[in-house]
Parts: sequence; C-alpha cells; structure tokens
Amino acid sequence: MSLNIKWVKGGVCAPKSFLAAGGYCGLRKNPDKKDLAIIYSPVPCNAAAVYTTNQVKAAPLYVTMDHLKDGKAQAVIANSGNANACVPDGREHAERMTEALAKALNIAPEDCIVASTGIIGVPLNIECVETSTPKIAKTLSFWGSRAAAEAIMTTDTYFKEAAVKVKLADTDITIGAISKGSGMIHPNMGTTLSFMTTDANISSPVLQEILRSCVKKSFNRISVDGDTSTNDMACILASGAAENPEILPGTPEYEGFSQALMVLCTELAKKLAADGEGATRLISCTVKGCETEDQAEIFSKAVIASSLVKAAMFGRDPNWGRILCAMGYSGAAFTPETVDISFTSDVGQVQVCRNGAAISFNEVLAKKVLSADSVDILVNMKSGTEEATAWGCDLTYDYVKINGEYHT
Amino acid sequence: MSLNIKWVKGGVCAPKSFLAAGGYCGLRKNPDKKDLAIIYSPVPCNAAAVYTTNQVKAAPLYVTMDHLKDGKAQAVIANSGNANACVPDGREHAERMTEALAKALNIAPEDCIVASTGIIGVPLNIECVETSTPKIAKTLSFWGSRAAAEAIMTTDTYFKEAAVKVKLADTDITIGAISKGSGMIHPNMGTTLSFMTTDANISSPVLQEILRSCVKKSFNRISVDGDTSTNDMACILASGAAENPEILPGTPEYEGFSQALMVLCTELAKKLAADGEGATRLISCTVKGCETEDQAEIFSKAVIASSLVKAAMFGRDPNWGRILCAMGYSGAAFTPETVDISFTSDVGQVQVCRNGAAISFNEVLAKKVLSADSVDILVNMKSGTEEATAWGCDLTYDYVKINGEYHT
Repeated sequence: MSLNIKWVKGGVCAPKSFLAAGGYCGLRKNPDKKDLAIIYSPVPCNAAAVYTTNQVKAAPLYVTMDHLKDGKAQAVIANSGNANACVPDGREHAERMTEALAKALNIAPEDCIVASTGIIGVPLNIECVETSTPKIAKTLSFWGSRAAAEAIMTTDTYFKEAAVKVKLADTDITIGAISKGSGMIHPNMGTTLSFMTTDANISSPVLQEILRSCVKKSFNRISVDGDTSTNDMACILASGAAENPEILPGTPEYEGFSQALMVLCTELAKKLAADGEGATRLISCTVKGCETEDQAEIFSKAVIASSLVKAAMFGRDPNWGRILCAMGYSGAAFTPETVDISFTSDVGQVQVCRNGAAISFNEVLAKKVLSADSVDILVNMKSGTEEATAWGCDLTYDYVKINGEYHT
Repeated sequence: MSLNIKWVKGGVCAPKSFLAAGGYCGLRKNPDKKDLAIIYSPVPCNAAAVYTTNQVKAAPLYVTMDHLKDGKAQAVIANSGNANACVPDGREHAERMTEALAKALNIAPEDCIVASTGIIGVPLNIECVETSTPKIAKTLSFWGSRAAAEAIMTTDTYFKEAAVKVKLADTDITIGAISKGSGMIHPNMGTTLSFMTTDANISSPVLQEILRSCVKKSFNRISVDGDTSTNDMACILASGAAENPEILPGTPEYEGFSQALMVLCTELAKKLAADGEGATRLISCTVKGCETEDQAEIFSKAVIASSLVKAAMFGRDPNWGRILCAMGYSGAAFTPETVDISFTSDVGQVQVCRNGAAISFNEVLAKKVLSADSVDILVNMKSGTEEATAWGCDLTYDYVKINGEYHT
C-alpha cells in the first residue's frame, strides 16, 4: 500500500458528515438479525454507481438509476431478507422505500438510493419497511457503520466494512465502505452490494469514472459460484466536507484518490471472496507475464471460477492440471508450453509445473502451503509484462448445504 | 423415438464386425478396476471424430487427429487412470500405445485411435500398457462391449453403453456406443469420451458431418461442473458390414441414419449427466418459445450450468428466481416479463412463475415434483417457436468430496 494511504476505523461513517444506522424491520424471520440499513449525509452529495450486468435487474436498481440521473444523492436505504426482484409490485415498493426514507429525513425521495438483497420472486412486505424506517432513522449516528453493515448481510458470516485516509495536497480525504457478498458473486457485472462514502470534493462524472475503473479491477475480479446476481450495485456518495480543492482529471490528487479507492475496493473484494458461501479459505490467482492485462484478467478469472480448482483447493490438493485446463477453456489464446505454476502462502512456496509440464515437487510442503487460510496460485505465462489478480474461495460441503436450503 | 428406431443390446459390439475388450493393465491402483479398453473391426472402417475445444489438449488427441487425416481407422485403444496430458513424453507415449495395439492386431498404427482419461500432469506408465495390450487384445470378443465400457470409467458410478437399430430402405443398420463422463463435462467442446461403431456403409466426410451435428445437440448440451476437459473426444467407426447402399446426403437414408445417431447420442448424454460427479438426479431444462434455436440453447445451458440452480435442485427447492437469474446473465437477450417457468417430473407438474413474476403454487406438490429421480425445468419464453433442451445434474456434498480428494 502506498505510504500516503492509511487504514482508519469507522466504515462509512469515517468520512466527515456521514451517519449510519441498521435495525430490524421484520423482513427476516429472526428478529435478532438486522435487515434494514440507512446511510445519510446532512449535506447533499455528488454520487456515482455501477450495477449488475444481469438482464434481469431487481426493481430497486431501476429506481436508483432514475434517482441518480442528476448525479446527486443524500441517503441510502437497503434491506436484506428480500431481493424485491421478479415481483409484480417491485418498482412501486422500491419507490415507497425511498419515500419512507425521504419523509423520515426530510429530504427529497429523488435524493435517496435504494437497494435490496435476499430471495427473488417473493413479494416484499413494504408495510413493515415503512413502519420501521422512521424508527431506524432516529438511531442514525456517527458510529452506526457496523449496524448498517450487519443489516445488509444475507448468508455472510461476518460484516464487512473498511475505510482509508489519504493526504491529497494538504487535505486529508477519507473514503469508507460497507459491503455484503457471499453467493452469486461472479466477475461479469457491476459488483456485489457495496455502499461507499467520502468527504472529498469531487464531481459526479469524475467520481463515476474512478468508481468504474476501481470496480473493474476489484469487485469484478472475484467469483464465488459463477452466478451473477440480479440485485448487485456499488455506489459512492461524496459530501465535499473535507473542503479540498475539487479533484480534477490529470492531477496528482486524481491519482491519489483513485489509488485510495482502489485499495479500499480491493480490501473489500478480498473480504467478500474469503467469506464466499461455505468458504474455508481465500484463494487468489495472479497471472503474470501476459501480453495484455485483459488476457491476464481472463485467465485469472477462469482459474478462480473453476469448480474443479475450487474443490481441489478445499481438499488441499496440488492438482495443477485443473488450473492449466481452466486457462485452456477460458477463451484467451496462449501457449501451454511456456506456463509455470506455483502455490504460495505464508507457509512457503512450491512450484508444481514448468513449461506446461509436471515437475517433481515436495508433496508434504505442497500440502502445508495449501492448508493456509489464504492461498495464492501464481501463474507465469512468460510471454509479456502484464498481470492481473482475481480472488475467490474454495468449494465446500457447506456451499451445497447453504444453497440447497436457502428457500425453505 | 421414431417407430423405425429400436434399442438393441450389445453396445459397441451390436453392429456387425466389431469386437471389444477391457482389462487391467496396471495404471489404476486397484486391480479390480479395468483400465484399458480395445475396440476392433477386422475390416477397415471409415471414421470421424470431434475433439475438446480446450486449447490445452492431451497428447492422444493430437495422435488421433493425425491418424484420422485419411478418414480411416480400424481399432481404438483407450486407458483410464491417467490423462497423458501436460507431461513431457505424452506424444511419444500416445504413439507407442497405437504401436502396441497395431502390433497385437497386425494392423497399421495409423489405423488406430488412441484416447486417455484420468489425472493430468502425471507421466503415463507406458511399459505396463505395452505389456498388457497383447494380453487384453487376445480377449477381444463380440460380447466385450461392457468390459470396454468399464475400462474407460473414472469417477463414473456405472458403465454406459447403448445401441440402436434402424431400417434404412431394406437394410437394418446398427449403431452402438460406449461412453464415460462424470466430471469436467461442459457444453463448450467436442464432447466427453464416447466411442461409437456402426455397420453402415457411409463415407468418412458424410459421417463427420452427421457426427458433428448430433454431438452439438446432445453431448454439447450437458454440463456437470462447467469445466471443459483437455481429453474429451467422440469418434465413430463405420465398417460397412451391413452392405447397405452408401448413405448419401439429401436421401431418406441420410435422415434415418442421422435420427438414429441422434437418439443414441441423446441417450448417452442423459446417462452422462445423470451420473455427473456426486449427482443424485438428472436435471433437464427445456426452453421453448424462442426466436432461434441458438437462443434456446444458450438459455437452457446457462440454467443447467448454474451452481445455484444445481444446489437448489439438490435441496428440492423451487427457487425459480435463480433460473431467471441464470438466463439473465447467459448473454442472450430476452424480455423477463414474458417468461413462464414450471417444474415437471413423473409425479406431476407445477408452475411457479408467470410473465417473469411470482405466482402462488402448491409448495407440497412442488417438493414432490422436485424429489423425483429426473426433473425437467420448463421455460416458455412466449416469443417464438424454437426450442432446445440441455441436461445436467444437481450439485451435492459428494461432488465436493470427489473433487477435493481426487489427486491424493
């Protein structure tokens, strides 16, 4: 990480002027689990967002797209427990969520972002959202990020938040985030559900450009099960409360802000991958020595998404043939005869393939390397200077259990 | 099935002039499991084959491509227990397998097809293959199809063979087959390992055309785990022993032969899907009402390949949102608002989605329908007259177990 960028506490509330809250509104069966999150800035913000590429999009996404046409927003409302997707009244219910929030905060519904996550095809109980929104809005605070992060969890086993501080010229800028993930995460889309905040002074179009670029190299490079959700979204609100001079393209401040957002997005992407449904470990795949970064991205994603590679990682099995095989069907062209493959973790490194062919290696060491909590698959194509990393997780019994029992 | 086409016994030995054998040569650890298969026709055959689309191809595929350049072959040798892929001496070892077979049968090595299946990246013990080939060749018989089918099994739980008879003009033509499958089966490739035989009089180019077309609509429409193997191949040998007039394009006999091969390939494809690694049931997805067959194929394959749909099928969970979601990221365009979805099995049928939205349905009946051994997902796009079916299986704990422990 660049020397300029520091981790800070507070999640979405770390940047100046943001409050957050999370509570139970009744969408989930278990009242001990929060299911409604609110993020709010008392000052109007410039905003940007990216959305799932799935053609079947949940109703809240259309409402959010509509509300962000002017590049302005001031609050976010998001529920878990129901996707509000593929239901007759989805659009109306999503609008009503923003209206309930707007009324509670005394702002315009058009300045509210709305998102949902949970089961598809079951009508949303809008009444309980409407009843609870003002109550939960009353609990908005500068330390509410964790509650909001908890309220958007579905099969996540832990809440995800992070924040970074970066000095741009003479001003400290902070960017914070909460995310949820777990299943249906595949690198072919906007992203999973991530809400970000910053106190930077930056216009909506510039923010949109930086967000898109960071998401491409972070959230879009993780895969849990190859499925791309109908509901996913990443958005960022910029309050300008840091009072820095406006961040403009082509300046060192633009680069600094981009780097800080990239660090934040990468950290969250890794958290999401490591907590993939049923996952016992974070698996990353770095492919280097490619002619282009696009090529490196295609290979690393194909490896991370392969069910056979994922199952081998679960079994601590150095079955590198499956890695080469996944690259072979990825769609990008290469010469198998130049490929080297190694596994690495905090235990050590072990090379298992040289020039596309088997080499003898220490099986005991390989097992130890593959038993670590975080394992990197290193592929060297020896054909260029470009590289890319993708993140995923192992495929376990629990993935099957979680997804065989979700509905009932 | 057309009235003209009848199931017959005998697998690859059902057509006139084919012998087969299967035995143990020492590649697998367990001597109770056969690991070397031979198919032989005493008369020269016209031949055709299709291969995996994976860029990383196992050595035997290159040798077979080479040997089939003249469209002629007379024998097949295939081993399980080792893929002979991504190893330094792969090509030489594959050549030596054909030489050993040719010597045992007193034919030319160039008339031998060779295939391997098993682990990637471990050198093949060619000596044991060479030692055992003459011994196993001595056991060639007209009732050896089952032994050959058993010898190509890897994680398959049962052997796969089938044969059909069809009357073309006044002559009975028989087509037989053995197959192996289980993991790494994905509709983006030549096919899994399938060896077919026929006594029809048909030229190699015409056979190639019909084989390619049948494989596209059968083997290429099954998916077990989304991985495409380095080793897969489907080939067919035509002995001409039925002494029918040569089958030429544009004739009723061409149509009849194509239909019979299609019926055979579809039956084997379903057997392969139903025996996918860890599978407890065959899942098919028929998408109808499309503008083009290509579109219907893309949708049906996307549904069958979705880990989330597969896990839901394992859990008898009528979570149709995941079906619509998979279609949404398939890449083909459609209007979610016209889609109907039903589940059907021998227990009954239950509609769960109308016009892209939830409808109320009998949950108890749905559970019963989804508990059958074979479940069909029926999707109606209501936008045209074309349709396609793809086959797969559920995703189970055992898939993870099998693939987490394969190597060690």
